[in-house]
Amino acid sequence: MMNLLATFPWFEMLGTFVFALSGAIVAAHLRQTFVTVCFFAFLTGVGGGSVRDVMLGQEAFWIADPYAGPVVLIAALLAWFSPVRWWEGRLLEWADAIGLAAFAALGTAKALSFGVAPISAVVLGIVSGCVGGIIRDVVAGVPSILMRPELYVTAAALSALTATVLLMLDMPRAPALAIATVLGIALRGAALVWRIELPAYSRHGSDPDHPTSA
Amino acid sequence: MMNLLATFPWFEMLGTFVFALSGAIVAAHLRQTFVTVCFFAFLTGVGGGSVRDVMLGQEAFWIADPYAGPVVLIAALLAWFSPVRWWEGRLLEWADAIGLAAFAALGTAKALSFGVAPISAVVLGIVSGCVGGIIRDVVAGVPSILMRPELYVTAAALSALTATVLLMLDMPRAPALAIATVLGIALRGAALVWRIELPAYSRHGSDPDHPTSA
Amino acid sequence: MMNLLATFPWFEMLGTFVFALSGAIVAAHLRQTFVTVCFFAFLTGVGGGSVRDVMLGQEAFWIADPYAGPVVLIAALLAWFSPVRWWEGRLLEWADAIGLAAFAALGTAKALSFGVAPISAVVLGIVSGCVGGIIRDVVAGVPSILMRPELYVTAAALSALTATVLLMLDMPRAPALAIATVLGIALRGAALVWRIELPAYSRHGSDPDHPTSA
Repeated sequence: MMNLLATFPWFEMLGTFVFALSGAIVAAHLRQTFVTVCFFAFLTGVGGGSVRDVMLGQEAFWIADPYAGPVVLIAALLAWFSPVRWWEGRLLEWADAIGLAAFAALGTAKALSFGVAPISAVVLGIVSGCVGGIIRDVVAGVPSILMRPELYVTAAALSALTATVLLMLDMPRAPALAIATVLGIALRGAALVWRIELPAYSRHGSDPDHPTSA
Repeated sequence: MMNLLATFPWFEMLGTFVFALSGAIVAAHLRQTFVTVCFFAFLTGVGGGSVRDVMLGQEAFWIADPYAGPVVLIAALLAWFSPVRWWEGRLLEWADAIGLAAFAALGTAKALSFGVAPISAVVLGIVSGCVGGIIRDVVAGVPSILMRPELYVTAAALSALTATVLLMLDMPRAPALAIATVLGIALRGAALVWRIELPAYSRHGSDPDHPTSA
Repeated sequence: MMNLLATFPWFEMLGTFVFALSGAIVAAHLRQTFVTVCFFAFLTGVGGGSVRDVMLGQEAFWIADPYAGPVVLIAALLAWFSPVRWWEGRLLEWADAIGLAAFAALGTAKALSFGVAPISAVVLGIVSGCVGGIIRDVVAGVPSILMRPELYVTAAALSALTATVLLMLDMPRAPALAIATVLGIALRGAALVWRIELPAYSRHGSDPDHPTSA
């Protein structure tokens, strides 16, 4: 049991679970069948980590992972059998925020463990965090969460940078990833709660394509 | 000649041909040039199998396959030089259905041949089957075939599950894949003909985003 | 210094820079933050080459490349700190054209260097050239540049074919890629300037979905 606890891939499965939940909620809202809800949960839950792995020239992590299938299924069942009221408002965005930060921190750590240079590891972490939500939104045909005004890529970047610094300072992996994940969730959460936005590009002048710009 | 028949990758090329045809039809309907029609045929025909292969950490199948290029070209020429009347109505959906079932069965078999666990092999088969149509629809900018009400992912799952069971019972590969493919086509076809739908998620209550829900 | 010049991956970085610039311009026009502008620059700049590499079963080129990060950052800074007036009109399309041709030529050469058959190398070159723009447009939620009437895939095909022929005639790599890239830019540029279009599919007859067809 202790052994199981020690070897269980906590961060991978946390990120997979919350992203899978976010995918299942989107598919349920689009009134899909249970099988399609499972498929969306799967694509969203493992998409970011899979892109990270194939970029590294490796097999996707979920293929040899005995927990990935059950974790995705539990997320899909939870979304299916719970009242939609639970998932209204911001719960979808919080699940997405947790997945974003967890996969950004973990993706960075996995890249570093393959001997990748720190800057490439940070970028790969950001990609791992963002791709799950991109796939979910593109396949569902809704505007990408990336394009909304609240900080998104920036939160992933904070988690990835923090993970890199802590791991290079030789902090053990579990606390380093936990701190990096919490910081990313905090930044994204603050952006959602107080609608924090970085200054956006605004040198539009007389751009005829953008009549709303000042 | 016998040798050629024995080594020809029948299922890969059947799936590639019918998906390529569906991609070529979509591009022709969007009034694209012949080169773009070929490109769509290619993306759709090999997309699902390529994602399957890179997930397994392998080179994409079509790179070393001398038949893939000609098969895609024949599909594109067929779509280009035939009257659009042939492709109106449901023929596009039937080509897509055959590709869906053939790639789901084949993707499962290929994953099993790499020693992947059965549950991961089934999932990889479903992904192989569904990704071709997703890429076609996303790049063309039309709503994904996945999101329509008729059973889609479920048909791929039936083919993948059947292939797994039959192959694990040591049935030879050719009949096992043929049976699995026919069952998937039959389910998807029945869904198209009689508009069979699984029960969709409907715990919407007073969801303000979904005014049409009861 | 001479050594640096000799080993600098000119074509890879030229394609990465101009595609990154096109991605950054699109994100800036959508009024995103600087971090998101960098992320778009990155996805667009390295997307096509990354898909090429994973199809070949390799690690993505940018992971071990010390220049890719700085090149993407410079492109993002250039887009961010310059007046939008510079990027109005056709400059975005010219940057995209240069990336399209450079990656098509380079992707073909890289595939050939892995011992891939010429026809597969040409296809992989076309994919390398086109995927960056597809990812940029799909993630941004704008219609794909591929679907516009001016020649696009055809220009990539010209670069890929030219590179294959010249390299198989044993021309040295640098002039072969330069000629192939210039020819692709010239064709795409001519299409943009004079709106050259190949004949589009037009066997529509009484297609009820396409009331505009003659």
